[in-house]
Amino acid sequence: MSLELLISQTIRAMALQSDCQLFEATFEKLVTELTEKDLTDPALADASIRLREIMVYNVARGKKNRGLSVIGSLRELLPPSQLSQEIVQKALVVGWCIEMVQGFFLMADDIMDDSVTRRGQPCWYKKDGIGLDAINDTLLLEASLYRLLCRHCRDQPYYVHLLELFNEAIFQTELGQTLDLLTATPGHVDLNKFTMERYKAIVKYKTAFYSFYLPVGAAMYMAGIYSKEEHNNAKHILLELGEFFQIQDDYLDCYGDPAVTGKIGTDIQDNKCSWLVVKALEIMTPKQKSELQACYGHSDEASVSKVKALYYMLQMPSLYHRYEEESYERLQKLIACHAGNLPQSIFLNFAKKIYKRKK
Amino acid sequence: MSLELLISQTIRAMALQSDCQLFEATFEKLVTELTEKDLTDPALADASIRLREIMVYNVARGKKNRGLSVIGSLRELLPPSQLSQEIVQKALVVGWCIEMVQGFFLMADDIMDDSVTRRGQPCWYKKDGIGLDAINDTLLLEASLYRLLCRHCRDQPYYVHLLELFNEAIFQTELGQTLDLLTATPGHVDLNKFTMERYKAIVKYKTAFYSFYLPVGAAMYMAGIYSKEEHNNAKHILLELGEFFQIQDDYLDCYGDPAVTGKIGTDIQDNKCSWLVVKALEIMTPKQKSELQACYGHSDEASVSKVKALYYMLQMPSLYHRYEEESYERLQKLIACHAGNLPQSIFLNFAKKIYKRKK
Repeated sequence: MSLELLISQTIRAMALQSDCQLFEATFEKLVTELTEKDLTDPALADASIRLREIMVYNVARGKKNRGLSVIGSLRELLPPSQLSQEIVQKALVVGWCIEMVQGFFLMADDIMDDSVTRRGQPCWYKKDGIGLDAINDTLLLEASLYRLLCRHCRDQPYYVHLLELFNEAIFQTELGQTLDLLTATPGHVDLNKFTMERYKAIVKYKTAFYSFYLPVGAAMYMAGIYSKEEHNNAKHILLELGEFFQIQDDYLDCYGDPAVTGKIGTDIQDNKCSWLVVKALEIMTPKQKSELQACYGHSDEASVSKVKALYYMLQMPSLYHRYEEESYERLQKLIACHAGNLPQSIFLNFAKKIYKRKK
Repeated sequence: MSLELLISQTIRAMALQSDCQLFEATFEKLVTELTEKDLTDPALADASIRLREIMVYNVARGKKNRGLSVIGSLRELLPPSQLSQEIVQKALVVGWCIEMVQGFFLMADDIMDDSVTRRGQPCWYKKDGIGLDAINDTLLLEASLYRLLCRHCRDQPYYVHLLELFNEAIFQTELGQTLDLLTATPGHVDLNKFTMERYKAIVKYKTAFYSFYLPVGAAMYMAGIYSKEEHNNAKHILLELGEFFQIQDDYLDCYGDPAVTGKIGTDIQDNKCSWLVVKALEIMTPKQKSELQACYGHSDEASVSKVKALYYMLQMPSLYHRYEEESYERLQKLIACHAGNLPQSIFLNFAKKIYKRKK
């Protein structure tokens, strides 16, 4: 490694480290703005307290990868000389807006999935005295992110683009959730619905768009990149990356080490339209399919073990590893072909983080 | 009545009649845009069908007063010569966006209130196979209205104002719903929370803002009126009108003729923070209050009758009628003082429709 490269990488690593601290520090300021500064009507005091609780419980405690991607991508798109303190600060705010998107979707999904815990704590709606009032809390969180965008970005030339991007990402995610809900009805296992085509559509709309394209697309607008073609190119690459990310997530749900991932997978028990079941269905015999039909989506240990034995017979781990390699190669080609004027490092950094992850 | 006035009133009545028909006819076009035209990815076919069902069931079947207020107000703000077919069409679209706001709030409120019927049909979430998936449907409906605004208004100078107005109205409504949920906990009657101050805050945020200011504010932006002062003036008047509207609604819930209103009130049974109970609490003796505490929020007929007897003793109907007169006078003064450059007819037309209503 040349000395120059080493220095530039060290500087970048220091900037990312400091972004992470700045990002954390920004949160409390934003909560104060949304609650105390914006809600000055004393009649709203109780609502203001509630909004603070929602933010702290459902937004502050995530992994923050999506949120940090905004400033991370912006550092790739603009030279340090153009990264004023002001624009860095705005990128951190936009990052938190993405964490709010993530937060309100998780709150809503947990109610719909009847989940119990999230990020190591009870789901918000499961807390004493919350229950289905959490639906309004979800809506409140969503509306709050547009208030932050308004407060911090309304004078910027990219403001209306950000508003549309967020709404587009939110809509796509909801379309994906619609497909997901129509595909895996709780308590009713219908393996015929688990096609690879449906799987890919769910992943693209429900996860990839908001997790991968949204932060980079936002950074592109903030860097003054408005061209539809450039956005489509980035989207193309990032949706592929998002698809791989979700497939890996599905793989880790079954084969990850709970000591490393921090969670015990339940996709089989929950009748999830996971890559593993979809891929297995593609190659199994009719006899194996009827065995699977009898066990999938059941929570008793014997049924789960039978599904895992079936996966073992079908060599799912090696199929996955083959897919992983092919996907990595496809992505490299996509980046080479489609990055266009965008620095390839934006995508390569993402790819590096994801392909090596074990949790 | 002079001949000129008669002619101008007849023309206006004909325009309103025709707006109503145009408004109805626009709906199907918008649904087709949102589903078939926008969702061309074949993988989204099922989601597209679902979105159509959501729209038809939850948006098309309302009274449409709010939606029609946009074109109604615009006709007061602009001379006929400036009302091109294009701007009329856009006002109808924005009107449907307001009906979508109304639709998604009702869908969410019905789940939170555990309601059974709405607009003479089962609540959406109560339908077979829907259940809590309705939460995602609610979000999908909300996101769809921003898509319509984008499709129809993005080239207009008022576009970003409309986006912010809708988000502001949605946020205020959710704040109001937060206060409402914190005030009347189901199954737990705490009359001390039912203060007039809290009542007015709930009404202002939960109902008045989106029902009254949103349609007129939208029409003002479409007419090129951006001044903050003029918007604040209109808001001031319209929030007062909205407050009266809700108080009247609360009165009709108890004293309206079900043959006329089309519904049987259940505010007493449902422990609602209604104007009647709040006003009654202001004037009752401690002994009456403990009687009320024992009966309010119970669904048995004896309890309901006792509450009604208490209302009768306290002369609630005549207190209401006194309030109605005072409110009407206050409103006339507000209009005279605050209408400023805006035609007073906008507000007077609203007032006329509301003050005489029996349903």
